[in-house]
Amino acid sequence: MKPDSPPSANARHRVHRAADRAHYDRDTIHGIVDAAYVCHVSWHDGDNVLCIPTACWRVDDHLYIHGSNGSRMMQSLAGGTQACVAITLLDGLVLAKSAFAHSMNYRSVVIHGQFSTVCAEDKPAVLAGLVEWILPGRTQDVRAADANELLATTVLALPLTEAAAKIRNWGPRDKEADVDLPCWSGVLPMQMQAMPSKALDASCSTPEAVDHWSRGAVIRN
Amino acid sequence: MKPDSPPSANARHRVHRAADRAHYDRDTIHGIVDAAYVCHVSWHDGDNVLCIPTACWRVDDHLYIHGSNGSRMMQSLAGGTQACVAITLLDGLVLAKSAFAHSMNYRSVVIHGQFSTVCAEDKPAVLAGLVEWILPGRTQDVRAADANELLATTVLALPLTEAAAKIRNWGPRDKEADVDLPCWSGVLPMQMQAMPSKALDASCSTPEAVDHWSRGAVIRN
Repeated sequence: MKPDSPPSANARHRVHRAADRAHYDRDTIHGIVDAAYVCHVSWHDGDNVLCIPTACWRVDDHLYIHGSNGSRMMQSLAGGTQACVAITLLDGLVLAKSAFAHSMNYRSVVIHGQFSTVCAEDKPAVLAGLVEWILPGRTQDVRAADANELLATTVLALPLTEAAAKIRNWGPRDKEADVDLPCWSGVLPMQMQAMPSKALDASCSTPEAVDHWSRGAVIRN
Repeated sequence: MKPDSPPSANARHRVHRAADRAHYDRDTIHGIVDAAYVCHVSWHDGDNVLCIPTACWRVDDHLYIHGSNGSRMMQSLAGGTQACVAITLLDGLVLAKSAFAHSMNYRSVVIHGQFSTVCAEDKPAVLAGLVEWILPGRTQDVRAADANELLATTVLALPLTEAAAKIRNWGPRDKEADVDLPCWSGVLPMQMQAMPSKALDASCSTPEAVDHWSRGAVIRN
C-alpha cells in the first residue's frame, strides 16, 4: 500500500478519533518528520511497554535512529520487535469561550512497523545524515566517525509506510450557544526557537550556520 | 518506595544508559512535568503497541490526561493496562569536534504504571486544573464544563511514583585527541517560545495573561 492511500478500516495506523485531522500522504508525513529532532519510540520488551525519546532523522522513505550496541532499546528493536514511533510538534494553545472547547494546535506522525539494522557499508552515509540533520554543512567541519566508533553504533531504519499524520491548525470552535460570551478567544501560538549559541572555546571561528542559529532563526518548524 | 530513592537494579524505571544523567527525586521530576503541555502515552492494546501524544497536566503527585469516553486510548488505559508515559523537552544541540561526540541537551521523564479513572466528584476540579495549566486564570473567564460535557469526558490519573528523569545540560565532551581540532564546538540552545496571539474576534478585551504571552514570554520551560 502506498503511504498516501487512506488505510483500510482495520489498519493499525488508521486515525480513529478526530479523523478530520488525519493525513496519509507522503509529503505531509515527511514535512512533519523533517521539522523534528526527536521521536518517541515504544515497544514491548517481553515484560513491559517502554517509551523512550531519541534523536531521529529521515533519509528518503525511512526514519532512522541510532544508539550504542549495548542499549536495550537498540537490541530489542534490532531483533524485529514491533514498534510504534510518534513525532509531535506543538504549535499553539487554543483558547475557546467554554472550558470544554479548549484545545491545542499540533502536527504529529505515528508510525507502526519493525526496524531493520543498517548494514556496515551504509552506516557512514546514514550517520553523516544525522550530523547534517543537526546542522547543515557540519560534516565538512568535524572529524568523521572512525572504524571503532562506527562498530560501536547500531543504526536502525523504520519505513515511513504505515504512518499517519494528524494536524490541528485552526482556531477555537465553540458551540453556537457560546460564541457570543464576553470572553477573549483565539490561539496562543508557540514554536521552537533557536537561542544564541554558546561556544566551548573561543579559539575557532564561528561557522555561518552557527551565526545563523544565534540570530534566532526558526529551525525545523 | 519514595520517588526520590534510587530504584533497585531490576526496577523497570531504572535508567540503564548514561546513568549519570538520571534523577529520581520528586522536585526534578515535577519540574520537568510542569514545563510540559504534552506527553506520549504508550501501551499494548492486545494486538499492537501504541504511542499517542496527548495533553497532560500535574496535580500533586499525579499526572493527568483526558479524552472522550469513546477513545480507544481512554478505554484501554481505564481498564488498568500497564502504560509507559514519556515527557521530553529539547533544550539544545551539542556540536562537538568529532561527529561521534555530537549530542543533544534535554530533560525527560519516563513514568511506568497503571492509570486510574478520576471519579465524577473529583472531575470538575481536576479538569479545571487543565484549563489553568493552559493559561493561569483562564477558569475565571470561560464557561465551565456542564454536566453533559463532564459525563462525556474520561479523566485518568497516573502516579508519579515509578518515574525517572534524565537530563543532559552540558557542552560537548570530545575525546582528548580531538579537543584541539580547529573546529567550532559548543551548544546551540533552543526553547519553546510564545508568539503573538491571534484573537478569533475583536469584540472582547484581551486578558493580561494573553498579552503577556504575546510579548513572547518564555513559557513552561
